[in-house]
Amino acid sequence: MRLDETTLPVYAKGAAILGAGGGGSTRPGLLAALETVEEKGPVEVISLDDVPDDELIVPAGLMGSPNVSQEKLGNPEMGAWMRDILERETGKRVCAFMPAEIAGQNALAPVIWGAHTGLPVVDADGMGRAFPEAQMFSMNVAGVSPSPSALIDERGHKVMLRNLDALRHERCARSMVVAFGGSAGNALYVCTGAQARTAVIAGSVTRALRIGQVLADAPADRIRALLDHLGGQVIITGKVSDIERHTSGGFVRGHALIDGVGVDSGRLVRIEIQNENLIVLEEGGVLVSVPDIITLLDTQTGDVIFTETIRYGQRGTLVAFPSPDIWRTPEGLALVAPRAFGYDFDYEPLELLTLSRNGEER
Amino acid sequence: MRLDETTLPVYAKGAAILGAGGGGSTRPGLLAALETVEEKGPVEVISLDDVPDDELIVPAGLMGSPNVSQEKLGNPEMGAWMRDILERETGKRVCAFMPAEIAGQNALAPVIWGAHTGLPVVDADGMGRAFPEAQMFSMNVAGVSPSPSALIDERGHKVMLRNLDALRHERCARSMVVAFGGSAGNALYVCTGAQARTAVIAGSVTRALRIGQVLADAPADRIRALLDHLGGQVIITGKVSDIERHTSGGFVRGHALIDGVGVDSGRLVRIEIQNENLIVLEEGGVLVSVPDIITLLDTQTGDVIFTETIRYGQRGTLVAFPSPDIWRTPEGLALVAPRAFGYDFDYEPLELLTLSRNGEER
Repeated sequence: MRLDETTLPVYAKGAAILGAGGGGSTRPGLLAALETVEEKGPVEVISLDDVPDDELIVPAGLMGSPNVSQEKLGNPEMGAWMRDILERETGKRVCAFMPAEIAGQNALAPVIWGAHTGLPVVDADGMGRAFPEAQMFSMNVAGVSPSPSALIDERGHKVMLRNLDALRHERCARSMVVAFGGSAGNALYVCTGAQARTAVIAGSVTRALRIGQVLADAPADRIRALLDHLGGQVIITGKVSDIERHTSGGFVRGHALIDGVGVDSGRLVRIEIQNENLIVLEEGGVLVSVPDIITLLDTQTGDVIFTETIRYGQRGTLVAFPSPDIWRTPEGLALVAPRAFGYDFDYEPLELLTLSRNGEER
Repeated sequence: MRLDETTLPVYAKGAAILGAGGGGSTRPGLLAALETVEEKGPVEVISLDDVPDDELIVPAGLMGSPNVSQEKLGNPEMGAWMRDILERETGKRVCAFMPAEIAGQNALAPVIWGAHTGLPVVDADGMGRAFPEAQMFSMNVAGVSPSPSALIDERGHKVMLRNLDALRHERCARSMVVAFGGSAGNALYVCTGAQARTAVIAGSVTRALRIGQVLADAPADRIRALLDHLGGQVIITGKVSDIERHTSGGFVRGHALIDGVGVDSGRLVRIEIQNENLIVLEEGGVLVSVPDIITLLDTQTGDVIFTETIRYGQRGTLVAFPSPDIWRTPEGLALVAPRAFGYDFDYEPLELLTLSRNGEER
């Protein structure tokens, strides 16, 4: 399987859906990726099974605030810089990149780095969606260390972190990202093929491609087709009546209010944001929360509205899909449940929450 | 020449004087250094001329806030960790440590790391005193890059920074130090023997030893002997009537007020502090400023009162010595004059400032 000028736009659409509003708007990343494959040729997508036991997979993406990464021009050399630092530090050969998170711009950056280094991309990722913090990886659940980790910016500033546990790595890498101006390329949780087979979420690239294909094949009612494909639900259809957003500590934080229209007229929901859509509240109650995937779609086009592109007055349909299985385990929930983000309530799966509120499927 | 249980206390006394109140109180560092040489044997001090052209000197010390480094127990392995990271990154052999700054605790830490790695210490340093920020090195004046630079804490957390110019290195390393808890070991401006011969301040270890010896040989009027040896002046003799000090952004910042006693009765001076004593003000005028070396001494014992150990009511004699020559050049002043610390006035050498005020030598 290859990512080329035909498949990349499909892949980008699907990865946007999985991003829970995060990972960064796909538009600049897709343009850069298309330009790259035009110049360098398509990027091979390999199966996890194809990675030799002792060679390295490099999970990589952009760390920081997506509203900053949108405005920083990337440098295609970043992938080679990451690879060189990590090969020197580990003494092992890097054989492929992997999207750290299968989400928005972050699904595309590793493709660009793969094209420029001549390395393939593994059909997998470390989140099955996007999360804002660097301890929130399936590789962390599996006991893989986040370091050696490489932080690199577009001007060639390079930092290698070593021997840091997951929370300390998040704290140290985040401060460095802030010092770098709010966004940087990050390669972390580097693992051998043998480790990766029990630590990463397999099939993520093909999952994004399939979602993109569902959207492409169903122009009539794209949102309905998507919900059917992913087992998702509409939370509310409405318009953005308020958006408060600020860049702080290497994140975008804030909230958006959605005023219901049509059948949802009279309802008002609040989306809590930290890079991703974390929580949806209505009348003080929780409608849906992380790790379930909460994505705001343009009601007319079905396109994703990313957290950094929400604007007052947009017509949006807020949808939610079940979380990847790993995040519903006790080990997963310890890292990504609402309490991990400072909220004082437990996670309940989407299926229970919304059904109990509406009494029936919408 | 060797640093052993006899010479280390002499060296520590001298380095404290050169520190301008910074570099960290010598007491814990001296105890640790004495314990180390007892266990590992003395540390050889080699001349800059003895370093092979193509082998590396590692300037090293503790970066951050001295009131934090005082309370963190060091780990003797830190030197080996620095050496290993830098050898792997550069492909060259490390042949010696060098005090990054010949000041307080920072004059002693590289001796401990030398003892534990079996490496000598070079008779030189990068400041000829202490300064708070990592662009303020003679190696920066000479065009040596601050990176590859290694930041390491006592628990083995390791960060390598690469390809950063001096100001960006300061900013990035400082944020990492804050994320590490306020203090970390730092090896930076690593240079070959050939580079070092035109980039570092030669003879600093022997200079500190000579100062320590002057103090040891003149117990009767130690402060007078010191002033004669260094060509220094008394600014004021008095007592500490106010101290404001806070830890912020990886520095100790604040000010102290000294109320004159005896011949200075009725006078009041203010010391501005950023890790080091930067500026002395009286009645709105500048008495003396960086890069001249401003050191507060205990009036009775002649011991240095470090910026993090100034306390209300202490009897102190504030003295100042001429800056190392390099900092009085235009290139040096661009990095360390009062304006480099945000003050809105130019540097005037100590000799002019104080003489014009007093009309005669005190």
